Amino acid sequence: MAIELDNIPRTVNLMRARAQDAPVPEGFPILEILDQTKLPSDVLIKRITDWREVIDAIKLLEVRGAPAIGIAGAAAIALRAAEFCFASVDDHRSDALDFDRVFVIDKEGLDKELYLTGMSYCADMVKGARPTAVNLAWAVDRCMHLVNDSIASGDDPDIVAAKLYDLVEQMIDDDEAANRSIGSSGAAILPDDACVLTHCNAGSLATSFFGTALGVIYEAAQGRGIRMVYADETRPVCQGSRLTVWELSRAGVPVTLICDDMAASVLASGEVDAVIVGADRIAANGDVANKIGTLGLAIIAAELNIAFLVAAPRSTIDMSTKTGADIVIEQRDASEVLERPIDGVEVFNPAFDVTPAKYVDWIITDLGVFRPDELALAFAK
Amino acid sequence: MAIELDNIPRTVNLMRARAQDAPVPEGFPILEILDQTKLPSDVLIKRITDWREVIDAIKLLEVRGAPAIGIAGAAAIALRAAEFCFASVDDHRSDALDFDRVFVIDKEGLDKELYLTGMSYCADMVKGARPTAVNLAWAVDRCMHLVNDSIASGDDPDIVAAKLYDLVEQMIDDDEAANRSIGSSGAAILPDDACVLTHCNAGSLATSFFGTALGVIYEAAQGRGIRMVYADETRPVCQGSRLTVWELSRAGVPVTLICDDMAASVLASGEVDAVIVGADRIAANGDVANKIGTLGLAIIAAELNIAFLVAAPRSTIDMSTKTGADIVIEQRDASEVLERPIDGVEVFNPAFDVTPAKYVDWIITDLGVFRPDELALAFAK
Repeated sequence: MAIELDNIPRTVNLMRARAQDAPVPEGFPILEILDQTKLPSDVLIKRITDWREVIDAIKLLEVRGAPAIGIAGAAAIALRAAEFCFASVDDHRSDALDFDRVFVIDKEGLDKELYLTGMSYCADMVKGARPTAVNLAWAVDRCMHLVNDSIASGDDPDIVAAKLYDLVEQMIDDDEAANRSIGSSGAAILPDDACVLTHCNAGSLATSFFGTALGVIYEAAQGRGIRMVYADETRPVCQGSRLTVWELSRAGVPVTLICDDMAASVLASGEVDAVIVGADRIAANGDVANKIGTLGLAIIAAELNIAFLVAAPRSTIDMSTKTGADIVIEQRDASEVLERPIDGVEVFNPAFDVTPAKYVDWIITDLGVFRPDELALAFAK
Repeated sequence: MAIELDNIPRTVNLMRARAQDAPVPEGFPILEILDQTKLPSDVLIKRITDWREVIDAIKLLEVRGAPAIGIAGAAAIALRAAEFCFASVDDHRSDALDFDRVFVIDKEGLDKELYLTGMSYCADMVKGARPTAVNLAWAVDRCMHLVNDSIASGDDPDIVAAKLYDLVEQMIDDDEAANRSIGSSGAAILPDDACVLTHCNAGSLATSFFGTALGVIYEAAQGRGIRMVYADETRPVCQGSRLTVWELSRAGVPVTLICDDMAASVLASGEVDAVIVGADRIAANGDVANKIGTLGLAIIAAELNIAFLVAAPRSTIDMSTKTGADIVIEQRDASEVLERPIDGVEVFNPAFDVTPAKYVDWIITDLGVFRPDELALAFAK
């Protein structure tokens, strides 16, 4: 099978502005994201230099997928830190965004408390953009640890901003390495010429490289072969029919789109070797929060004796969340489900569900493959 | 709860043309259907006098739901029979439809064989419009039995046509009676103030009166109360989000729309007392063919110990189909799932799935409520 990994898009990227990027000052960080709301009709790279716009991009799902929003969230912190270093930046900012404007600080006489308050405010806003995926909070918290340590050790805002920029670059590299490791570990447990079913998009469009669940598929396709990938359309936002089928077909992986309610029928046909999905948060007991629809697939796969695999980097495993019951499920707007309201009709639109550990066969991480009940020991701090 | 059954639409109706209905000759049968492709934005009644247009209406899902397409199919036979009696009818027919034109027969010297060939051709075309729902074949076969008996006993085409018209009217009345009986039987097994989840549309828009699965809900709502109905949107044609929520809300029944992949989460919440769906064909062993997505719901309900109820008239129970494995599943066009094709992406679009009897708790019929394994005895011929 000729798999073209060169066709896999880069979803999140960090760079420094050059002279021609004015009015952003030279050297200012730029977060590039592949705007996923425009896919598959338009492949649009969006350049973001305002941390408030990162929050909008996360809320609007222009950037999505637990690992990718972790990196975007960290980049938002780096952008905020850079604002403190470039007095001219505020001049060209739009006031259209509805976040409170954060006070600008005179670098010469740095008020550390005020600086940290400003950074923390930004961090809280970013973390609030999507509550369920732990990677966002994890990445922002890592940034804020660096900020606090750096300021405590006497660094000035320029140094803090530079360190944050390097940290985000490191996170991108680490995520790519995690993708590759997950891909290898996961591909090893699939049979030759596997037929798999996946839900939502845990691919290149959700990470810095080729994805988690789809990373396993790409890796298998390059090696022992992939016979077919069944991709759920994944209502209401259709990450499957807009994103997963797009990236798999571009890479030359055979893919068949189905509606979410067809998955049981496909699984019952006996054709599918494994269901493989990503995760937004995995609790210490192995319960998995992931895109709405995952729970149903896991129950059906268990009943039909089909392997149910969850692929995620270590940052998705949240040992501070004891069980799935502790995970906040984000409720999204009714308009995602029903374009025009109908009188007397309510809409329920949870973005995620929680799959109890008992329905999960394997959790594929960058540290290896685990049974859900092995996580507590393997990831104990 | 104030339930307004007056707001329940009449989906299929048969009448005779009056003078003002020209160019259709006075007395010619007219099938009225509520065009379901226009709902919920437009409530459009379509008047059909050409049997070929009935086939189109069935294929295009303008009329849908196993009992309703049974009646529409029978009406198509009645329309065909009427064509033989009104020499002027063919004059105003459009030739745009792609069915072979059926020869016109001179009534005076009736060639019985040619007449029956013409009627049988029509019957075969109508039955082929949707292969999975047994009600269509059942209703058409009933009509053709009448035609054969009637011709054999020396009736002329006018009498055959009149008898067919009466039979269709009888089928409408019988279906209403079956709806009422199913409603009563089903409502009796729901708890007070029940919360139920339903898939697709097995309501007034699928039958002659207030439906099968939704009939149970309407009946319960008028009596012991309905706390909430969760309606799956039912991709790809969205019978849930376009039809079920529309008719329930019009009647004043509390309804919450969810995407199909949210059902497991709703069922796992513990809020739902029962899942209730209609059926397109029930095999002798209790296996149930119904709208794609039913199988997944049944597996999930079984795992979570939630009652799984199937409501259908006796005409849906097909003792000549031994098990679900013998049921032909209609595959529909990819464009229903994916509006614009994506290069390299296949689409699988089965319209129905088969739920093994072991996942079904009760089958609610107009002859009472049965366990799946009781059908063979109860409906033995």
